Amino acid sequence: MKLHGYFRSSAAYRVRIALNLKGLSAHHLPHHLRKGEQRDPAYLAINPQGLVPTLQDDAGAIITQSLAIIEWLEETHPEPPLLPKDRLRRAKIRAFAMALACDTHPVQNLKVLARLRELGLPEEQVTGWAAWANREGLAACERLIANEPGPFCFGAAPTMADLCLVPQLGNARRFGVDVHAFLRLLEAEAAAKNIKAFVDAAPERQPDAE
Amino acid sequence: MKLHGYFRSSAAYRVRIALNLKGLSAHHLPHHLRKGEQRDPAYLAINPQGLVPTLQDDAGAIITQSLAIIEWLEETHPEPPLLPKDRLRRAKIRAFAMALACDTHPVQNLKVLARLRELGLPEEQVTGWAAWANREGLAACERLIANEPGPFCFGAAPTMADLCLVPQLGNARRFGVDVHAFLRLLEAEAAAKNIKAFVDAAPERQPDAE
Repeated sequence: MKLHGYFRSSAAYRVRIALNLKGLSAHHLPHHLRKGEQRDPAYLAINPQGLVPTLQDDAGAIITQSLAIIEWLEETHPEPPLLPKDRLRRAKIRAFAMALACDTHPVQNLKVLARLRELGLPEEQVTGWAAWANREGLAACERLIANEPGPFCFGAAPTMADLCLVPQLGNARRFGVDVHAFLRLLEAEAAAKNIKAFVDAAPERQPDAE
Repeated sequence: MKLHGYFRSSAAYRVRIALNLKGLSAHHLPHHLRKGEQRDPAYLAINPQGLVPTLQDDAGAIITQSLAIIEWLEETHPEPPLLPKDRLRRAKIRAFAMALACDTHPVQNLKVLARLRELGLPEEQVTGWAAWANREGLAACERLIANEPGPFCFGAAPTMADLCLVPQLGNARRFGVDVHAFLRLLEAEAAAKNIKAFVDAAPERQPDAE
Protein backbone atom coordinates (compact mmCIF):
# COMPACT_ATOMS: atom_id res chain seq x y z
CA MET A 1 0.00 0.00 0.00
CA LYS A 2 0.96 3.63 -0.50
CA LEU A 3 -0.11 6.45 1.81
CA HIS A 4 -0.02 9.97 0.43
CA GLY A 5 0.41 12.25 3.41
CA TYR A 6 2.26 15.05 5.13
CA PHE A 7 4.02 14.76 8.46
CA ARG A 8 1.99 17.54 10.08
CA SER A 9 -1.43 16.66 8.63
CA SER A 10 -3.58 15.46 11.50
CA ALA A 11 -5.83 13.58 9.05
CA ALA A 12 -2.83 11.62 7.69
CA TYR A 13 -1.66 11.09 11.29
CA ARG A 14 -4.95 9.31 12.10
CA VAL A 15 -4.39 6.87 9.24
CA ARG A 16 -0.75 6.29 10.22
CA ILE A 17 -1.92 5.25 13.70
CA ALA A 18 -4.57 2.93 12.24
CA LEU A 19 -2.04 1.23 9.93
CA ASN A 20 0.40 0.78 12.82
CA LEU A 21 -2.25 -0.61 15.18
CA LYS A 22 -3.27 -3.15 12.56
CA GLY A 23 0.34 -4.09 11.84
CA LEU A 24 0.17 -2.91 8.22
CA SER A 25 2.99 -1.19 6.42
CA ALA A 26 2.61 1.42 3.71
CA HIS A 27 5.05 3.29 1.53
CA HIS A 28 4.74 6.92 2.61
CA LEU A 29 4.59 9.52 -0.14
CA PRO A 30 4.86 13.00 1.34
CA HIS A 31 3.23 16.04 -0.26
CA HIS A 32 4.46 19.30 1.21
CA LEU A 33 1.21 21.13 1.93
CA ARG A 34 2.82 24.47 2.75
CA LYS A 35 4.57 24.41 -0.64
CA GLY A 36 1.25 23.56 -2.36
CA GLU A 37 2.33 20.14 -3.63
CA GLN A 38 -1.20 18.82 -2.99
CA ARG A 39 -2.38 20.96 -5.90
CA ASP A 40 -0.06 19.25 -8.38
CA PRO A 41 -2.24 17.99 -11.29
CA ALA A 42 -0.89 14.44 -10.89
CA TYR A 43 -2.05 14.42 -7.26
CA LEU A 44 -5.39 16.10 -8.01
CA ALA A 45 -6.05 13.29 -10.49
CA ILE A 46 -6.13 10.82 -7.60
CA ASN A 47 -7.50 13.19 -4.94
CA PRO A 48 -9.69 15.91 -6.51
CA GLN A 49 -9.98 17.68 -3.16
CA GLY A 50 -6.22 18.29 -3.07
CA LEU A 51 -6.10 17.05 0.51
CA VAL A 52 -4.15 14.35 2.30
CA PRO A 53 -4.33 11.49 3.09
CA THR A 54 -4.99 9.24 0.10
CA LEU A 55 -4.46 5.48 0.33
CA GLN A 56 -3.62 3.36 -2.71
CA ASP A 57 -3.88 -0.36 -2.15
CA ASP A 58 -1.71 -2.95 -3.88
CA ALA A 59 -4.26 -3.34 -6.68
CA GLY A 60 -4.12 0.42 -7.31
CA ALA A 61 -7.51 1.23 -5.78
CA ILE A 62 -7.66 4.78 -4.43
CA ILE A 63 -9.39 5.81 -1.21
CA THR A 64 -9.59 9.38 0.06
CA GLN A 65 -10.82 10.87 3.36
CA SER A 66 -9.15 9.67 6.54
CA LEU A 67 -12.26 8.23 8.21
CA ALA A 68 -13.31 6.43 5.00
CA ILE A 69 -9.81 4.94 4.84
CA ILE A 70 -10.03 3.89 8.50
CA GLU A 71 -13.47 2.29 7.99
CA TRP A 72 -12.04 0.43 4.96
CA LEU A 73 -9.04 -0.76 7.00
CA GLU A 74 -11.45 -1.91 9.72
CA GLU A 75 -13.52 -3.88 7.20
CA THR A 76 -10.55 -5.42 5.37
CA HIS A 77 -8.25 -5.98 8.37
CA PRO A 78 -10.60 -6.38 11.37
CA GLU A 79 -7.94 -7.17 13.99
CA PRO A 80 -7.36 -5.49 16.33
CA PRO A 81 -10.74 -3.74 16.09
CA LEU A 82 -10.97 0.05 16.06
CA LEU A 83 -14.72 -0.17 16.64
CA PRO A 84 -16.48 -2.57 19.05
CA LYS A 85 -19.29 -4.90 17.97
CA ASP A 86 -22.04 -3.17 19.95
CA ARG A 87 -23.93 -0.89 17.58
CA LEU A 88 -24.66 1.91 20.00
CA ARG A 89 -21.02 1.98 21.12
CA ARG A 90 -19.92 2.11 17.49
CA ALA A 91 -22.22 5.08 16.92
CA LYS A 92 -20.90 6.92 20.00
CA ILE A 93 -17.29 6.36 18.92
CA ARG A 94 -17.97 7.46 15.35
CA ALA A 95 -19.75 10.57 16.64
CA PHE A 96 -16.76 11.50 18.81
CA ALA A 97 -14.41 10.96 15.85
CA MET A 98 -16.63 13.10 13.63
CA ALA A 99 -16.91 15.89 16.18
CA LEU A 100 -13.19 16.29 15.48
CA ALA A 101 -12.94 15.13 11.85
CA CYS A 102 -15.99 17.10 10.64
CA ASP A 103 -16.52 20.02 12.98
CA THR A 104 -13.05 20.82 14.29
CA HIS A 105 -10.19 19.94 11.98
CA PRO A 106 -11.64 21.24 8.67
CA VAL A 107 -12.44 24.59 10.27
CA GLN A 108 -8.76 25.09 11.19
CA ASN A 109 -6.96 23.43 8.28
CA LEU A 110 -4.33 25.14 6.12
CA LYS A 111 -6.81 25.95 3.35
CA VAL A 112 -9.26 27.74 5.64
CA LEU A 113 -6.51 29.66 7.44
CA ALA A 114 -5.07 30.73 4.06
CA ARG A 115 -8.52 32.00 3.06
CA LEU A 116 -8.76 34.05 6.26
CA ARG A 117 -5.40 35.66 5.40
CA GLU A 118 -6.64 36.41 1.88
CA LEU A 119 -9.61 38.23 3.42
CA GLY A 120 -7.15 40.49 5.19
CA LEU A 121 -7.25 39.13 8.73
CA PRO A 122 -4.03 39.74 10.66
CA GLU A 123 -1.96 36.72 11.74
CA GLU A 124 -3.07 37.09 15.35
CA GLN A 125 -6.72 36.70 14.38
CA VAL A 126 -5.93 33.76 12.10
CA THR A 127 -4.20 31.93 14.95
CA GLY A 128 -7.04 32.96 17.25
CA TRP A 129 -9.52 31.39 14.82
CA ALA A 130 -7.62 28.09 14.79
CA ALA A 131 -7.40 28.12 18.60
CA TRP A 132 -11.14 28.81 18.85
CA ALA A 133 -12.02 25.87 16.56
CA ASN A 134 -9.79 23.52 18.56
CA ARG A 135 -11.06 24.75 21.93
CA GLU A 136 -14.73 24.37 20.95
CA GLY A 137 -14.21 20.90 19.49
CA LEU A 138 -12.15 19.55 22.35
CA ALA A 139 -14.48 21.00 24.99
CA ALA A 140 -17.40 19.17 23.38
CA CYS A 141 -15.37 15.96 23.19
CA GLU A 142 -14.45 16.21 26.86
CA ARG A 143 -18.17 16.24 27.66
CA LEU A 144 -18.95 13.44 25.19
CA ILE A 145 -16.77 11.00 27.14
CA ALA A 146 -17.21 12.39 30.66
CA ASN A 147 -19.01 9.22 31.74
CA GLU A 148 -17.08 6.72 29.63
CA PRO A 149 -14.60 4.37 31.30
CA GLY A 150 -10.91 5.10 30.67
CA PRO A 151 -8.10 5.14 30.18
CA PHE A 152 -8.78 5.48 26.43
CA CYS A 153 -11.68 7.56 25.12
CA PHE A 154 -14.03 4.58 25.22
CA GLY A 155 -12.56 2.07 27.62
CA ALA A 156 -9.62 -0.27 27.87
CA ALA A 157 -8.45 -0.24 24.22
CA PRO A 158 -7.88 2.47 21.62
CA THR A 159 -10.65 3.06 19.08
CA MET A 160 -11.29 5.33 16.11
CA ALA A 161 -11.94 8.06 18.70
CA ASP A 162 -8.37 7.99 20.04
CA LEU A 163 -7.02 8.04 16.47
CA CYS A 164 -8.71 11.40 16.00
CA LEU A 165 -8.08 12.78 19.48
CA VAL A 166 -4.29 12.45 19.68
CA PRO A 167 -3.56 14.41 16.45
CA GLN A 168 -6.13 17.07 17.35
CA LEU A 169 -4.57 17.68 20.76
CA GLY A 170 -1.28 18.21 18.93
CA ASN A 171 -2.91 20.82 16.72
CA ALA A 172 -4.53 22.52 19.69
CA ARG A 173 -1.19 22.96 21.43
CA ARG A 174 0.44 24.29 18.24
CA PHE A 175 -2.24 26.98 18.15
CA GLY A 176 -1.70 27.88 21.80
CA VAL A 177 -4.82 26.30 23.31
CA ASP A 178 -4.59 25.63 27.04
CA VAL A 179 -5.68 21.98 27.18
CA HIS A 180 -5.17 21.45 30.90
CA ALA A 181 -8.89 21.51 31.68
CA PHE A 182 -9.57 18.55 29.39
CA LEU A 183 -8.72 15.94 32.01
CA ARG A 184 -10.52 13.04 30.38
CA LEU A 185 -8.96 13.77 26.98
CA LEU A 186 -5.49 14.04 28.52
CA GLU A 187 -6.00 10.70 30.27
CA ALA A 188 -6.77 9.10 26.90
CA GLU A 189 -3.80 10.80 25.25
CA ALA A 190 -1.46 9.60 28.01
CA ALA A 191 -2.67 6.02 27.50
CA ALA A 192 -2.14 6.33 23.73
CA LYS A 193 1.37 7.69 24.15
CA ASN A 194 2.32 4.42 25.84
CA ILE A 195 1.54 2.51 22.66
CA LYS A 196 4.20 2.16 19.96
CA ALA A 197 1.63 2.44 17.14
CA PHE A 198 0.79 5.97 18.31
CA VAL A 199 4.39 6.96 19.06
CA ASP A 200 5.68 5.83 15.65
CA ALA A 201 2.90 7.74 13.85
CA ALA A 202 3.79 11.09 15.43
CA PRO A 203 4.65 13.95 13.05
CA GLU A 204 8.22 14.31 14.30
CA ARG A 205 8.93 10.64 13.54
CA GLN A 206 8.02 10.95 9.83
CA PRO A 207 10.68 11.08 7.11
CA ASP A 208 9.40 14.44 5.81
CA ALA A 209 9.41 16.08 9.28
CA GLU A 210 11.12 19.47 9.36
CA MET B 1 -37.47 7.55 17.91
CA LYS B 2 -37.01 11.29 18.29
CA LEU B 3 -34.98 13.42 15.91
CA HIS B 4 -33.76 16.77 17.18
CA GLY B 5 -33.31 18.96 14.11
CA TYR B 6 -34.00 22.19 12.29
CA PHE B 7 -35.76 22.46 8.96
CA ARG B 8 -32.87 24.21 7.26
CA SER B 9 -30.00 22.18 8.77
CA SER B 10 -28.46 20.17 5.95
CA ALA B 11 -27.07 17.67 8.48
CA ALA B 12 -30.57 17.03 9.89
CA TYR B 13 -31.90 16.85 6.29
CA ARG B 14 -29.48 13.95 5.57
CA VAL B 15 -30.90 11.98 8.50
CA ARG B 16 -34.51 12.77 7.52
CA ILE B 17 -33.83 11.26 4.07
CA ALA B 18 -32.22 8.17 5.64
CA LEU B 19 -35.18 7.62 7.98
CA ASN B 20 -37.65 8.01 5.09
CA LEU B 21 -35.71 5.65 2.79
CA LYS B 22 -35.69 3.00 5.51
CA GLY B 23 -39.38 3.50 6.24
CA LEU B 24 -38.77 4.64 9.80
CA SER B 25 -40.73 7.35 11.53
CA ALA B 26 -39.40 9.72 14.15
CA HIS B 27 -40.95 12.43 16.24
CA HIS B 28 -39.32 15.64 15.06
CA LEU B 29 -38.19 18.09 17.73
CA PRO B 30 -37.15 21.37 16.13
CA HIS B 31 -34.49 23.63 17.64
CA HIS B 32 -34.45 27.07 16.06
CA LEU B 33 -30.75 27.52 15.31
CA ARG B 34 -30.99 31.20 14.36
CA LYS B 35 -32.62 31.90 17.74
CA GLY B 36 -29.85 29.93 19.50
CA GLU B 37 -32.13 27.22 20.89
CA GLN B 38 -29.34 24.66 20.31
CA ARG B 39 -27.43 26.29 23.16
CA ASP B 40 -30.21 25.64 25.67
CA PRO B 41 -28.64 23.77 28.65
CA ALA B 42 -31.20 20.96 28.34
CA TYR B 43 -30.15 20.39 24.74
CA LEU B 44 -26.43 20.73 25.45
CA ALA B 45 -26.84 17.95 28.01
CA ILE B 46 -27.71 15.54 25.20
CA ASN B 47 -25.57 17.14 22.46
CA PRO B 48 -22.53 18.91 23.97
CA GLN B 49 -21.62 20.32 20.56
CA GLY B 50 -24.86 22.29 20.44
CA LEU B 51 -25.47 21.08 16.90
CA VAL B 52 -28.30 19.23 15.20
CA PRO B 53 -29.20 16.49 14.50
CA THR B 54 -29.41 14.25 17.56
CA LEU B 55 -31.30 10.96 17.45
CA GLN B 56 -32.86 9.40 20.54
CA ASP B 57 -34.01 5.83 20.11
CA ASP B 58 -36.97 4.30 21.91
CA ALA B 59 -34.73 3.06 24.73
CA GLY B 60 -33.44 6.62 25.24
CA ALA B 61 -30.01 6.07 23.69
CA ILE B 62 -28.56 9.26 22.25
CA ILE B 63 -26.60 9.47 19.00
CA THR B 64 -25.08 12.67 17.62
CA GLN B 65 -23.40 13.49 14.28
CA SER B 66 -25.42 12.90 11.13
CA LEU B 67 -23.09 10.34 9.54
CA ALA B 68 -22.76 8.40 12.80
CA ILE B 69 -26.56 8.32 12.99
CA ILE B 70 -26.78 7.14 9.37
CA GLU B 71 -24.18 4.39 9.95
CA TRP B 72 -26.18 3.30 13.02
CA LEU B 73 -29.42 3.25 11.03
CA GLU B 74 -27.63 1.21 8.35
CA GLU B 75 -26.43 -1.32 10.95
CA THR B 76 -29.74 -1.59 12.80
CA HIS B 77 -32.11 -1.33 9.80
CA PRO B 78 -30.09 -2.66 6.84
CA GLU B 79 -32.87 -2.52 4.22
CA PRO B 80 -32.78 -0.80 1.82
CA PRO B 81 -29.00 -0.44 2.03
CA LEU B 82 -27.39 2.99 1.94
CA LEU B 83 -23.98 1.38 1.38
CA PRO B 84 -23.26 -1.59 -0.94
CA LYS B 85 -21.53 -4.78 0.23
CA ASP B 86 -18.33 -4.25 -1.80
CA ARG B 87 -15.71 -2.77 0.53
CA LEU B 88 -14.00 -0.52 -1.98
CA ARG B 89 -17.37 0.87 -3.13
CA ARG B 90 -18.32 1.50 0.50
CA ALA B 91 -15.07 3.43 0.97
CA LYS B 92 -15.63 5.52 -2.16
CA ILE B 93 -19.18 6.38 -1.09
CA ARG B 94 -18.12 7.27 2.45
CA ALA B 95 -15.32 9.45 1.06
CA PHE B 96 -17.76 11.35 -1.14
CA ALA B 97 -20.12 11.82 1.81
CA MET B 98 -17.25 13.05 3.99
CA ALA B 99 -15.97 15.46 1.33
CA LEU B 100 -19.27 17.24 2.00
CA ALA B 101 -19.91 16.38 5.67
CA CYS B 102 -16.34 17.11 6.82
CA ASP B 103 -14.76 19.55 4.39
CA THR B 104 -17.69 21.53 3.04
CA HIS B 105 -20.67 21.84 5.36
CA PRO B 106 -18.82 22.62 8.64
CA VAL B 107 -16.84 25.39 6.93
CA GLN B 108 -20.06 27.17 5.98
CA ASN B 109 -22.34 26.41 8.92
CA LEU B 110 -24.12 29.04 11.01
CA LYS B 111 -21.51 28.97 13.78
CA VAL B 112 -18.58 29.64 11.43
CA LEU B 113 -20.43 32.38 9.56
CA ALA B 114 -21.35 34.01 12.89
CA ARG B 115 -17.68 33.95 13.87
CA LEU B 116 -16.70 35.65 10.61
CA ARG B 117 -19.20 38.42 11.39
CA GLU B 118 -17.76 38.76 14.90
CA LEU B 119 -14.35 39.31 13.31
CA GLY B 120 -15.80 42.27 11.46
CA LEU B 121 -16.22 40.84 7.97
CA PRO B 122 -19.00 42.55 5.99
CA GLU B 123 -22.04 40.48 5.00
CA GLU B 124 -20.89 40.30 1.38
CA GLN B 125 -17.64 38.61 2.40
CA VAL B 126 -19.47 36.25 4.76
CA THR B 127 -21.77 35.10 1.96
CA GLY B 128 -18.76 34.92 -0.36
CA TRP B 129 -17.03 32.64 2.15
CA ALA B 130 -20.03 30.28 2.26
CA ALA B 131 -20.25 30.27 -1.54
CA TRP B 132 -16.52 29.50 -1.79
CA ALA B 133 -16.78 26.53 0.60
CA ASN B 134 -19.74 25.11 -1.33
CA ARG B 135 -18.13 25.66 -4.74
CA GLU B 136 -14.86 23.98 -3.72
CA GLY B 137 -16.61 21.00 -2.15
CA LEU B 138 -19.06 20.42 -4.98
CA ALA B 139 -16.37 20.82 -7.66
CA ALA B 140 -14.32 18.08 -5.97
CA CYS B 141 -17.42 15.87 -5.67
CA GLU B 142 -18.21 16.32 -9.37
CA ARG B 143 -14.74 14.94 -10.16
CA LEU B 144 -15.05 12.13 -7.57
CA ILE B 145 -18.01 10.61 -9.46
CA ALA B 146 -17.09 11.63 -13.02
CA ASN B 147 -16.62 7.99 -13.99
CA GLU B 148 -19.32 6.47 -11.80
CA PRO B 149 -22.51 5.16 -13.41
CA GLY B 150 -25.67 7.22 -12.85
CA PRO B 151 -28.25 8.32 -12.35
CA PHE B 152 -27.46 8.51 -8.61
CA CYS B 153 -23.98 9.39 -7.37
CA PHE B 154 -22.92 5.76 -7.34
CA GLY B 155 -25.22 3.89 -9.70
CA ALA B 156 -28.83 2.81 -9.86
CA ALA B 157 -29.87 3.40 -6.24
CA PRO B 158 -29.39 6.20 -3.72
CA THR B 159 -26.58 5.80 -1.17
CA MET B 160 -25.11 7.76 1.72
CA ALA B 161 -23.50 9.97 -0.96
CA ASP B 162 -26.86 11.18 -2.31
CA LEU B 163 -28.08 11.84 1.25
CA CYS B 164 -25.25 14.35 1.62
CA LEU B 165 -25.34 15.76 -1.91
CA VAL B 166 -28.98 16.86 -2.12
CA PRO B 167 -28.92 19.05 1.03
CA GLN B 168 -25.53 20.53 0.07
CA LEU B 169 -26.77 21.57 -3.38
CA GLY B 170 -29.63 23.35 -1.60
CA ASN B 171 -27.13 25.24 0.55
CA ALA B 172 -25.00 26.10 -2.47
CA ARG B 173 -27.95 27.70 -4.24
CA ARG B 174 -28.95 29.65 -1.12
CA PHE B 175 -25.46 31.16 -1.09
CA GLY B 176 -25.66 32.07 -4.78
CA VAL B 177 -23.35 29.39 -6.21
CA ASP B 178 -23.83 28.72 -9.93
CA VAL B 179 -24.19 24.95 -9.92
CA HIS B 180 -24.89 24.50 -13.64
CA ALA B 181 -21.41 23.16 -14.39
CA PHE B 182 -21.88 20.23 -12.00
CA LEU B 183 -23.67 18.04 -14.54
CA ARG B 184 -23.06 14.73 -12.80
CA LEU B 185 -24.20 16.10 -9.44
CA LEU B 186 -27.33 17.59 -11.00
CA GLU B 187 -28.12 14.24 -12.64
CA ALA B 188 -27.97 12.59 -9.22
CA GLU B 189 -30.08 15.34 -7.64
CA ALA B 190 -32.73 15.00 -10.37
CA ALA B 191 -32.92 11.24 -9.73
CA ALA B 192 -33.28 11.85 -5.99
CA LYS B 193 -36.04 14.41 -6.46
CA ASN B 194 -38.15 11.67 -8.05
CA ILE B 195 -38.12 9.71 -4.80
CA LYS B 196 -40.70 10.46 -2.13
CA ALA B 197 -38.19 9.87 0.70
CA PHE B 198 -36.11 12.79 -0.56
CA VAL B 199 -39.09 15.03 -1.37
CA ASP B 200 -40.68 14.57 2.06
CA ALA B 201 -37.37 15.36 3.81
CA ALA B 202 -36.96 18.75 2.12
CA PRO B 203 -36.67 21.78 4.40
CA GLU B 204 -39.85 23.43 3.11
CA ARG B 205 -41.89 20.31 4.01
CA GLN B 206 -40.90 20.38 7.69
CA PRO B 207 -43.32 21.56 10.40
CA ASP B 208 -40.88 24.26 11.57
CA ALA B 209 -40.29 25.68 8.06
CA GLU B 210 -40.62 29.45 7.87
